[in-house]
Amino acid sequence: MKSVSCAGLCGLLFLLSIITTAQADEGFWLFNAPPLDQLKSKYDFSPDAAWLEHLQKSSVRFNNGGSGSFVSPTGLVITNHHVGADALEKFSGSEHNYLRDGFYAATFAEEKKCYDLELNVLESIEDVTDRVNAAFPQGATSEQTLAARRKAIADIEQESKKTTGLRSDVVTLFEGASYQLYRYKQYTDVRLVFAPEAGIAFFGGDPDNFEYPRYNLDMCLFRVYENGRPVHPEHYLRFSPDGPSEHELTFVSGNPGFTDRLATTAAIEEHRDIWLPILLSAFYRKEVLLDAYSARSSDNARKAREELLRVQNTRKALAGQLAGLLDPQTFQLVSARQDSLEKEAAKDPRFSGLTDSYTQIQKAIETSRGDFVNYLFYEGLIPRSSLVLGIRNRPLGFDSQLFRFARGLVRAAVEQKKENEKRLPEYRETSRETLELLLFSEAPIYDDLEIQQLSGSLTNLVTRYGVNDPLVKDLLQGKSPHDRAYELISGTHLKDVQFRRKLYQGGLPALNETNDPMIKFAQATDEMARRARQAVEEQNEVCQTAYAQIAKAKRAIQGNHFAPDATFSLRLSFGTTEGYEEDGKSIPAFTDFAGLYERAAQHDNQSPFDLPKRWLDRRSALNPHTPFNFVSTADNTGGNSGSPVVNRKGEFVGILFDGNIQSLPTDYLYTDKQARAVAVDSRAILEALDKVYQIPALVAELTGKSVN
Amino acid sequence: MKSVSCAGLCGLLFLLSIITTAQADEGFWLFNAPPLDQLKSKYDFSPDAAWLEHLQKSSVRFNNGGSGSFVSPTGLVITNHHVGADALEKFSGSEHNYLRDGFYAATFAEEKKCYDLELNVLESIEDVTDRVNAAFPQGATSEQTLAARRKAIADIEQESKKTTGLRSDVVTLFEGASYQLYRYKQYTDVRLVFAPEAGIAFFGGDPDNFEYPRYNLDMCLFRVYENGRPVHPEHYLRFSPDGPSEHELTFVSGNPGFTDRLATTAAIEEHRDIWLPILLSAFYRKEVLLDAYSARSSDNARKAREELLRVQNTRKALAGQLAGLLDPQTFQLVSARQDSLEKEAAKDPRFSGLTDSYTQIQKAIETSRGDFVNYLFYEGLIPRSSLVLGIRNRPLGFDSQLFRFARGLVRAAVEQKKENEKRLPEYRETSRETLELLLFSEAPIYDDLEIQQLSGSLTNLVTRYGVNDPLVKDLLQGKSPHDRAYELISGTHLKDVQFRRKLYQGGLPALNETNDPMIKFAQATDEMARRARQAVEEQNEVCQTAYAQIAKAKRAIQGNHFAPDATFSLRLSFGTTEGYEEDGKSIPAFTDFAGLYERAAQHDNQSPFDLPKRWLDRRSALNPHTPFNFVSTADNTGGNSGSPVVNRKGEFVGILFDGNIQSLPTDYLYTDKQARAVAVDSRAILEALDKVYQIPALVAELTGKSVN
Repeated sequence: MKSVSCAGLCGLLFLLSIITTAQADEGFWLFNAPPLDQLKSKYDFSPDAAWLEHLQKSSVRFNNGGSGSFVSPTGLVITNHHVGADALEKFSGSEHNYLRDGFYAATFAEEKKCYDLELNVLESIEDVTDRVNAAFPQGATSEQTLAARRKAIADIEQESKKTTGLRSDVVTLFEGASYQLYRYKQYTDVRLVFAPEAGIAFFGGDPDNFEYPRYNLDMCLFRVYENGRPVHPEHYLRFSPDGPSEHELTFVSGNPGFTDRLATTAAIEEHRDIWLPILLSAFYRKEVLLDAYSARSSDNARKAREELLRVQNTRKALAGQLAGLLDPQTFQLVSARQDSLEKEAAKDPRFSGLTDSYTQIQKAIETSRGDFVNYLFYEGLIPRSSLVLGIRNRPLGFDSQLFRFARGLVRAAVEQKKENEKRLPEYRETSRETLELLLFSEAPIYDDLEIQQLSGSLTNLVTRYGVNDPLVKDLLQGKSPHDRAYELISGTHLKDVQFRRKLYQGGLPALNETNDPMIKFAQATDEMARRARQAVEEQNEVCQTAYAQIAKAKRAIQGNHFAPDATFSLRLSFGTTEGYEEDGKSIPAFTDFAGLYERAAQHDNQSPFDLPKRWLDRRSALNPHTPFNFVSTADNTGGNSGSPVVNRKGEFVGILFDGNIQSLPTDYLYTDKQARAVAVDSRAILEALDKVYQIPALVAELTGKSVN
Repeated sequence: MKSVSCAGLCGLLFLLSIITTAQADEGFWLFNAPPLDQLKSKYDFSPDAAWLEHLQKSSVRFNNGGSGSFVSPTGLVITNHHVGADALEKFSGSEHNYLRDGFYAATFAEEKKCYDLELNVLESIEDVTDRVNAAFPQGATSEQTLAARRKAIADIEQESKKTTGLRSDVVTLFEGASYQLYRYKQYTDVRLVFAPEAGIAFFGGDPDNFEYPRYNLDMCLFRVYENGRPVHPEHYLRFSPDGPSEHELTFVSGNPGFTDRLATTAAIEEHRDIWLPILLSAFYRKEVLLDAYSARSSDNARKAREELLRVQNTRKALAGQLAGLLDPQTFQLVSARQDSLEKEAAKDPRFSGLTDSYTQIQKAIETSRGDFVNYLFYEGLIPRSSLVLGIRNRPLGFDSQLFRFARGLVRAAVEQKKENEKRLPEYRETSRETLELLLFSEAPIYDDLEIQQLSGSLTNLVTRYGVNDPLVKDLLQGKSPHDRAYELISGTHLKDVQFRRKLYQGGLPALNETNDPMIKFAQATDEMARRARQAVEEQNEVCQTAYAQIAKAKRAIQGNHFAPDATFSLRLSFGTTEGYEEDGKSIPAFTDFAGLYERAAQHDNQSPFDLPKRWLDRRSALNPHTPFNFVSTADNTGGNSGSPVVNRKGEFVGILFDGNIQSLPTDYLYTDKQARAVAVDSRAILEALDKVYQIPALVAELTGKSVN
C-alpha cells in the first residue's frame, strides 16, 4: 500500500542492479516544469498547457495521506479503498461493517458524510524562491535562518491565503534550492458513495502487499459537496472503457510523499543503524499487540483493522528497507554515487565546497542523534512528517488518539497567542481549517484499544529511557504503563467533542483550569517534545543548506534532467505498462479476473485469499479475461496511492494502489529494472460495478453514457 | 501454556498484593523431603513412603520441556497436547495434518514412533551435598570453583551411570546449599496413540492462553516401548471417574522449570532493564515474521504452527512479566523482602556476611553484562537453559535447526576428545543418548522456514552489533542477512541424517575436511559463544555462592518452611481446587462442556474459537454438565505442563496445562490470592474419549474397566 502513512518511512534501498543514469522514466515532475524534452524525445509526445491544467485540476490530494481524482461532472472522486478505509472504519459500528461488507448509496441523500476528511485541489503554482532567499540574513546561525525561513514562508502563505482565499503552502524543493507556492482549493464536505468489500479491495492481505501479480479492486468513490450540494468541477477525468495497452505511455498524477535521492552515506548509515531499528522494534511490538487484541473477538478485529493494516504495511516497508540497507552492496552503490559526484565536482572551482557539504551533513547527524531519538519518542515518527501530519503525528511514546487531541489543544492554546509566523506550521492561520477539522472529529474512539495502544507505547518509552528517568517518572506518576494508560484514558473527557470545543475556545485559561488528566499529561510531555523538535529542525536547517549545495552541483554537472525529491505535493510521473523478470521468471504486465479466482482456489478460499460472497455468486456474469491489475514503470512512492493513471488523451485508464517490493528502495535510488507501480485497470472497475455490484448508474456517471 | 520453553523465561513478577508469609500452599517440594508437617497440620493428611514412591515412579519427564505420567498397565503416558505437539508436527506432512485433525491408532501396529522424544522416570534421589562440597578448593577463584564443581558433578554422574545404567543428573538446590543425585530410567521409543484436534486442545488460542475460565482438552496419549514391546510399568496412575471436588486437596507431580524466589533487587532490575527488553524485541520480530509466513498458505501455517505457538506463548509470558516489573510497586515489594531479611540477619552474627552477598551479586551482574548479552545472541536464551536445553538452545543470533545440528556436531567433536568431567555437560557420556537422539532426528526440516528464521535472527545480530563489527562481518561474508541465510540453508547437507552421522562419527578430521557451509559457519560462531558462556558461568558461580549464603540465612531465620527453587526436576506441590476474585467478579473453580459451546457461539465459531467438526456433530451425545477445566492453588510454573493432578488416594483426577496470568509473577513471589494452576478434569477426558471420539478401548484402558 502506498499511502503516505508509509511514505517518508519508505525511504531506503536495497538495489542490487547497477545505478541507471537518468535514461529511464525517473522523476516526480512539477506541473509548472514538466519533462517536455524527455517526453518528446523518448515518446514523441508534447502535452500542451491545457492538457497539463486539465490533469492538474482533476487531481485531488487526500490529506490523510493519499491521492485521488475527480471522475464525474457531479463531483465523484475516486481513490483507493485503503485511502478511504480510514473514513469507512469511522462509519462502521457493531451494526454495520462497511469496511468488511462494502457500501453503496443509491441516492445523494444516502451518501454518508465523512468525519474528518479534507481534499485539496491544486489551483496554481508560483515560484517564490527569490522572495524566500531574500529573507535569509547573511552569516546567520542555523537557529536564525530557521526562524527567517519560517517567517518568510508564513508571510507568503498568509498573504496568499488572504488575497485568494485558497489554502497556500510553500513547498521547499531541491532541499531549498527552490521554493514554490502551491495554492489549493479545500473541500471538507466529502461523502462516501461506494466501497467494495475489504476482501476484494485488499485480496491477499499482508502476504500479497507489495507483491505482484496482484488481484485487488483497491478503489472507492466519494462525492465532494459544497454548500450542501454536489460540486460540478470544471475539470474531471473521463473513465476509459479500454484501459491501457501493453507498452503504452501513461501518466501518474498524485502526491508522492517523500524521497531521498540525494541522501549521503552518513544519512543512510543513520537510517540503517538508528532510525530503522528503533522504528521497527516499535512496529513489531505494536503489530503483535494489535494482532492479539484483534484475535479476541470479531468486534475487536473490526475496531483495530485499519490500524493493523497501517502497521503491517509500514512494517513490511521498513523491514524491506532495513533488509536492503543491510546488504553491503547497497552501501557501495550509494558510496559510489557520492564519490563520483565529488570527483566531478573537484574539477570545477564553483563546487569546491562540496566535500564540506558532506562533512556538514555528517556532523549535523552526529550532533543531533540524541535529539533525534527524543523526537521519535516525544514528537513524531520523522522530522519532516510534522509538516504534513501535523497533529496526526504519532510519537513512539504516546500512541493514542485522545493524546493527540490533548496535544493539539495544549499547543493550539500556546501557538495561537503567538504571531502567526512564529507558530509551528500546523497551528498557523493557513492551517486553521485543517486543525479544527481534526480536533473536532466525531470519529469513534474505542477505550480498550486506546488503553492498549497507550500502554504499549508507554512501555516503549520506559524501556528506552529507563524507569528512573526523571521525566518518565513524572509522566508515569508511580504507576505501571498499563495502569497509567488506564487511568488517563478512562479519566479524560476528551472523547466528548463539546469538551474539546470548550477547551479550544477557552484557550490557555481553560486549559489551566481543567483537571483533565490527559491534558495535564500532554502538557507534561510538551517541553521535551518541543525542545527535540526545535533541535532537530535546526540541524535539518544545516543539512538542508548543505543538501542545496549538493543539489546545485548535481544539477550543474548532470544537467537539469532530474526532478526534485517528493514532498507530498502534486507531481507528474510517467512510464509504460511493462512486465519484468524475477528469479528468472517473466512477470506479465496484466492480471485478469480469471487469475483472481485461480489464486483464491489455490488457497482454498481461506483468509486473506477468501472472496466476498458477491464475487462467488456473480462469477459467471463476469468476463474472466477482463484485465484486473497492471504494472507500470512510472516513478512512485508512498502518497501516490489513489493517483489516477491517464493516457495521452487524458483519460482515466487506472488507479495506482501500490508498488512492488522492488520499488521500495527507489526512494533512494531509482531503477526501472524491476521496480513497478501497481494499478487497478479502469476496465476492471467498470466490469465489477456493472456485473458484480450491478450499479449501472455509477457506470453511466463514470463513462458519461446514459444508463441502458 | 506451561511448558519449559517458557519456563525460566517465566521468571518475574507483578504482585499487587502483600507478600504472604509461607502459610499458603507454596513450594516445589522434593520427593525425598516432602512437606509432611504442612500437610498434616493444614489438611490432616500424611502420605506414607509407598504413596510417595507410587506417585514419583508414575511421573514422567518429557525432555522437550514438559511433564506427564503413566496411566495404564500397558505403558500409556498422558501429557498435554501442547507438550506432544512438537512430535505431532513432525509427523504431519502435506497429506496428513495430525496436529490440526487429531490422531488415533486403534492397534499397536498403527502407533507412530516419535522422532526424537525422550522420557525419563525418576528412580531414586541421593543427597550428595557433602561429596560436592568436599571438592571445592579453599580460597579458589570462581574459575577454579566452577571447574571443581563441574568435575565433582561429572564424576558423581559418571560413576552412578556406570553402576546403575541409569541417567544420572546432579541437581543443584538452594543455589548450591544442597546437591541431589537424580537417577532416571530413560525411554526413547515413544509412540503416539491418541491426540485430539488442535482446535479443542488449544481452544481460544493465544487470546485465551494464560487466562481463565478455560475450555481446553489439552491432552494426548503416547505409549512407551522397550525392545519393540509396550512396557508394563510397575507404577501408573489409575484414572478417577470422579475428578476433584471443590476445595479438595490435590497434588501436582511434575517438573517445574525455573523459579527465582531468592532474586535480589539487582537481579530483578537486570531482568527488567536488559534481559526482558532484548528478548521481547526478538520475540516480537519473530512472531511477526512467523505470522506473515503462515498467512501465505495453509501449508505454511501448518509448518510454522508449533513454532508460532511457542513464540506467542513465550511472548505473552515475557510481556506479562515486563509489565509486572515496570510496576513500581513490584520493586518495592522485592526491596522490602530483601530489607527485612537483611534487618533480621543483622541481629545474628552468623549472618554478618549477608550484605556482602547482596553486593557480590550486584557486582557480578554489572561485570558480566557484556558477556551476558553476547551469551544471548551467540549461545542461548538464558544461562541456566544450557543445562536443560543442551543442543536445543536457541541463541538470538542463529535461529535455525540446521544451525543447531551444526553446532552440536562441531562441539561434539571437540568435547568428546576431552576428559569427560571437563566437557560441557550436554556432551558428557551421561548425556550421549540424549545428544544422539537429537542429532540424528529424522524430523522434517522446511528450507523456506529455516531461511526466514535464520535471516530474521541474523538481522537481530547485525542490528545489535552493527555492520562493522568484525565478527559479524566475518559471519555475513559481505552478504545481507537474507542472502547469507539463503546461502547457508540451501548450501548445507545437514538435512541428510546420514551426512550428520558421518560427520559425527568422523569427529574433528571429518569436520576439518568438509566444506559444508553451515559447519564452517557454526565453527566461526563457536569461540565467541564459548567465551560468553564461560564468562557467564563464572559470574553465576559468584552469584551462586552468594545466593547460597542468602538461602542459608533465610532458612535459619524463617525456618525450614520453604522448598528449593524449581530446577526442571521432579517436584511435588499441593493445593485445593478454588475459584478466585478478579476485578470484583467471582471466577468459579470449574468450567463445563456447556460453557465451551457457549463461548464458541459468542465468537460465531470463528478461529481461534471454532470447534472441530466432531465436537459440533457429537454435541448432543455429551453430558453438558461434565466438568471440563478447573483451577487449583497448587504452586506451578513452566515445565509443569502435563503434570498429573492426583487426589489423596493417588488417583489421576486431572492434568495441569497452564497457569492463569496472575500466576506468571509467582516465579518471583508466590501468592495464592489469584494465582492458579489450570487443569483438564479427568471426567472431561473420559467423556470426550467416550462420546466425541467414541474410543471405548482407551476409556477401558484408562479406567481399568473392560469395554462395554
